[in-house]
Amino acid sequence: MKAVVYEKFAKAPKIMNVQDPTPEAHGVVIKVEATGVCRSDWHGWMGHDPDIELPHVPGHEFAGVIEAVGKDVKSFKVGDRVTVPFVSACGACPECHGGNHQVCGNQTQPGFTHWGSFAEYVTIHHADVNLVTLPETMDFATAASLGCRFVTSFRAVVDQGKVSAGQWVAVYGCGGVGLSAIMIANSIGANVIAVDVTEDKLALAKSLGAYATINALQVPDVAEAIKEITRGGVHVSLDALGHPTTCINSIKSLKKLGKHVQVGLLLADHATPPIPMNLVIAHELEIIGSHGMQAFRYDAMLAMIKSGKLRPDKL
Amino acid sequence: MKAVVYEKFAKAPKIMNVQDPTPEAHGVVIKVEATGVCRSDWHGWMGHDPDIELPHVPGHEFAGVIEAVGKDVKSFKVGDRVTVPFVSACGACPECHGGNHQVCGNQTQPGFTHWGSFAEYVTIHHADVNLVTLPETMDFATAASLGCRFVTSFRAVVDQGKVSAGQWVAVYGCGGVGLSAIMIANSIGANVIAVDVTEDKLALAKSLGAYATINALQVPDVAEAIKEITRGGVHVSLDALGHPTTCINSIKSLKKLGKHVQVGLLLADHATPPIPMNLVIAHELEIIGSHGMQAFRYDAMLAMIKSGKLRPDKL
Amino acid sequence: MKAVVYEKFAKAPKIMNVQDPTPEAHGVVIKVEATGVCRSDWHGWMGHDPDIELPHVPGHEFAGVIEAVGKDVKSFKVGDRVTVPFVSACGACPECHGGNHQVCGNQTQPGFTHWGSFAEYVTIHHADVNLVTLPETMDFATAASLGCRFVTSFRAVVDQGKVSAGQWVAVYGCGGVGLSAIMIANSIGANVIAVDVTEDKLALAKSLGAYATINALQVPDVAEAIKEITRGGVHVSLDALGHPTTCINSIKSLKKLGKHVQVGLLLADHATPPIPMNLVIAHELEIIGSHGMQAFRYDAMLAMIKSGKLRPDKL
Amino acid sequence: MKAVVYEKFAKAPKIMNVQDPTPEAHGVVIKVEATGVCRSDWHGWMGHDPDIELPHVPGHEFAGVIEAVGKDVKSFKVGDRVTVPFVSACGACPECHGGNHQVCGNQTQPGFTHWGSFAEYVTIHHADVNLVTLPETMDFATAASLGCRFVTSFRAVVDQGKVSAGQWVAVYGCGGVGLSAIMIANSIGANVIAVDVTEDKLALAKSLGAYATINALQVPDVAEAIKEITRGGVHVSLDALGHPTTCINSIKSLKKLGKHVQVGLLLADHATPPIPMNLVIAHELEIIGSHGMQAFRYDAMLAMIKSGKLRPDKL
Ligand SMILES: [Zn+2]
Ligand SMILES: [Zn+2]
Ligand SMILES: [Zn+2]
Ligand SMILES: [Zn+2]
Ligand SMILES: [Zn+2]
Ligand SMILES: [Zn+2]
Ligand SMILES: [Zn+2]
Ligand SMILES: [Zn+2]
Repeated sequence: MKAVVYEKFAKAPKIMNVQDPTPEAHGVVIKVEATGVCRSDWHGWMGHDPDIELPHVPGHEFAGVIEAVGKDVKSFKVGDRVTVPFVSACGACPECHGGNHQVCGNQTQPGFTHWGSFAEYVTIHHADVNLVTLPETMDFATAASLGCRFVTSFRAVVDQGKVSAGQWVAVYGCGGVGLSAIMIANSIGANVIAVDVTEDKLALAKSLGAYATINALQVPDVAEAIKEITRGGVHVSLDALGHPTTCINSIKSLKKLGKHVQVGLLLADHATPPIPMNLVIAHELEIIGSHGMQAFRYDAMLAMIKSGKLRPDKL
Repeated sequence: MKAVVYEKFAKAPKIMNVQDPTPEAHGVVIKVEATGVCRSDWHGWMGHDPDIELPHVPGHEFAGVIEAVGKDVKSFKVGDRVTVPFVSACGACPECHGGNHQVCGNQTQPGFTHWGSFAEYVTIHHADVNLVTLPETMDFATAASLGCRFVTSFRAVVDQGKVSAGQWVAVYGCGGVGLSAIMIANSIGANVIAVDVTEDKLALAKSLGAYATINALQVPDVAEAIKEITRGGVHVSLDALGHPTTCINSIKSLKKLGKHVQVGLLLADHATPPIPMNLVIAHELEIIGSHGMQAFRYDAMLAMIKSGKLRPDKL
Repeated sequence: MKAVVYEKFAKAPKIMNVQDPTPEAHGVVIKVEATGVCRSDWHGWMGHDPDIELPHVPGHEFAGVIEAVGKDVKSFKVGDRVTVPFVSACGACPECHGGNHQVCGNQTQPGFTHWGSFAEYVTIHHADVNLVTLPETMDFATAASLGCRFVTSFRAVVDQGKVSAGQWVAVYGCGGVGLSAIMIANSIGANVIAVDVTEDKLALAKSLGAYATINALQVPDVAEAIKEITRGGVHVSLDALGHPTTCINSIKSLKKLGKHVQVGLLLADHATPPIPMNLVIAHELEIIGSHGMQAFRYDAMLAMIKSGKLRPDKL
Repeated sequence: MKAVVYEKFAKAPKIMNVQDPTPEAHGVVIKVEATGVCRSDWHGWMGHDPDIELPHVPGHEFAGVIEAVGKDVKSFKVGDRVTVPFVSACGACPECHGGNHQVCGNQTQPGFTHWGSFAEYVTIHHADVNLVTLPETMDFATAASLGCRFVTSFRAVVDQGKVSAGQWVAVYGCGGVGLSAIMIANSIGANVIAVDVTEDKLALAKSLGAYATINALQVPDVAEAIKEITRGGVHVSLDALGHPTTCINSIKSLKKLGKHVQVGLLLADHATPPIPMNLVIAHELEIIGSHGMQAFRYDAMLAMIKSGKLRPDKL
């Protein structure tokens, strides 16, 4: 098959002919129909990801049609239209048994732990656990564009944030993850305040349902601005950017008993921000991380897309 | 003041001049600006409610302006625009201390335990616990029309049903409570299936956001019909009518681990329906009752009305 | 191998020589070291269970040593000391993916869907999902005696009842399931009231930690007796017997917002008891079923056995 | 009455005759029968607490008998034996309405916002919300010794930690709060690992039920030591000391999806420790604060003391 291959980190990849993949007993080979790209791919290409062995084919956000099926796969067959979560789980560790595939300790990821979707074909392991059947009405491009951002935001807002009807929610950062979070939180009855530093993104946030927007460059104190709009603070706040400043401001935006969800990655120098634990105690705040989403939870997201409550095509 | 008084049960009430009320130390007198009526008023007038002493002034769904304030009231003042929940709580029993005013054992209710809102003025006890400030943008007629139905449905769907993004929800009965439940569940991301026996109401359900409707007279088995649409059953089902048939069908509509919320009252001969407990065990189903809503939980509902996510004016 | 076989329902079984089993690719063969018997075996032998095909080998409560391993099994090897839950799950259906193996729709059960543990060897399917490693300090007889009762009670009390520190808990029925529930609830900080009709069992309940006992034959109204002891009712009540009377009394024993857990099976004529739904609404009660327990949840139970907090050997 | 008064911060207090207090309408005067002292009193006396006005009478941990009752108090009368939580709540703010008195924004505290219990009499405001009736079998000294530590630990372990049967729990710091937490977690079925730097305290921890103890001075990495004992980390970890090191080690001790509860105060220079947010994301950890406990939650704690499951007298 043809594939996009890089042989050194941070060097231009080439289109090459490589050997066609075969499925593992529990896996499948998928013919790639659409594929996306995100910041994770850039990190991989730069050599920041220890899982990657050279030469490498990147790509982890895709949709396609099953081309070959391992003999132990039960729930899928050749010809099925499918996509996959950011992380493929093993299905057999304690976390997987408990339904928490998103933190599986034996995870695999096309484009990282093995060759990815910038190719004609890509393999997925433990297919019964990890494949998601596409609704008939969803085209491959839309499915691939769910990428890891929309899906990650769904878990962050719904399963970790447990955002509830009529709550006030703040979203820091209006990139792909943040805008997805705004759309999702709005669609489940929250009044959302979007924070960013560029007017374009804030306008987009507004068009996707944000109740109010704040340009962080134009207020002296973002958390205070949020407390004014909400008369006391938000119930849930997400740092969708991943920076000490947005993380800390997000926590300071909370009302008593509020919850901060960390979605944006905090890496290297940013990994250990000085968190206001005095507030965490006095106001009994909660801080929680969110990391990907299990394949079986796509059902809820797809049900909302099917009935038009979520419109990822608008992002 | 003038008031609508009945001196015998089930006999025509009269408009009479009666003494103006004065507030208790912890209570207020409210000038009634709008008042509604519901089936509970009919039950009271028929003599089904042991709390009512004759002569009596009915009326429990209203909005108005505070006319007089008891000396111990802290959070409200003369001139405030307010409404109240179905039940007024005492604020001092174990249930109230835990925030569960809706099941207060010492509850009072204008129109039942004392004179109600079919009058120029009505009293409310324990005002700090029970009054709800109206948003400036909400008129009295809309506030009164929230009545006990919309509010009861909000608790049933949000706090007891804990309906979550992308869930399938069935609502049995498309009267005031049922239509409110449909609007609310739809507004928080659920795909709702409405069940009734009249096409008019089902059409209304559809216009309020129902994903599908079922005329119970036109299918052999409502629960089976729901399982077909949803490929296995709903996550949450509400009996908004209050009848053994709808209660039992609602339970039978659930998928494994599903939850039935009983909102419609089951009285007299209907109080103890034969519940399929064999299903409750085998599928680990949950059954839960819902009864009114606390004043402090109006905040979430009003936040959604403010941002246009809920439109009680459409009911 | 030798096995206990019955060729007709309700007829005496015989010890016969039958063919040795071989493991499925995802399964194991276990050499049985200890096996128990419970009422389910009797139901099966009487022909009440549609899954059983004749001739049949009963037995589902056992512990032993892995004799042979299918080639797809990852987490277990020959020689491992193991036991299994009441139900073996498929590991690949939506319920299994979500961690709810106890309600798997494709469940298998040695002694029911295939030959059981009254034999030298028994097979278990989907071994990675269903096997439980025995602690070194637990002998086979104790492990087999956990049977389905102790394990079922653990889920009923901990995961479904969510019994919390200092709660009042009632347990109706002091057979194997009930006594297990009493021991477990007591061990996690609840004050337990045991109900039965025989003094012997109540004495045993007391010795296992019950705070109080009630002989249902010696009080006019069990639920009232419980409300007196607890000044208002219990937080959680379990029907561990499985009878309309105990089920309904259990529900009537609850305080407001209380939870009834149905553990005892309600079969045939008893399947649909007249539940006091009027109470369920007025007091916002919760009713929930409990059915077996997932293999991965044995960890918590075994941790308590290891530290002496649970003593199944005392039952 | 006689009272212990200090007229300057950090100067020796004197026993003086001061005017007898009178109750507010919603308050009571309590004859002090036993009183305790904790680090908070020292902070107050040093001038660290902005609420204190001089001259001042310290003391906030006490038990006694009601001497006088304000006219609006409903649930208590002269002669009742009572104690109070660390914080007295107003009963009328949004947090109080929701049952979260422990984070009331209008809180009062004898010994801080007004004169305390180092006197013959002390006043408590909003008595219906804040008083706790002592069980007949509990003497005043034991009640006073519950102080703020035992009660704070109960909320931290039970309501915020939601420690569940068979979980592994770590407690950092074996002072009053930590030892209480160990006893409480052990009593609800957790296996507890106690961490401190002195052998005496660790021995005490062991005698109160700790499964294992770790002297932090004798292992290279406490979190690693905990992961070894538990084969992967604890479900819940508490920092009962209040120091950046213990806070961070506590978080690092968690298994995936684990929860850290911050109980020990982090003040001044210690208020914003560098939290490993990279772990919080990757392992979907949860961090939550805990602050006092509501009066109405004493019921659960007292039920456990009554049945001998908790023994605060052993601390
Ligand atoms: Zn991506
Ligand atoms: Zn895994
Ligand atoms: Zn009350
Ligand atoms: Zn009404
Ligand atoms: Zn059994
Ligand atoms: Zn399954
Ligand atoms: Zn307050
Ligand atoms: Zn103290």
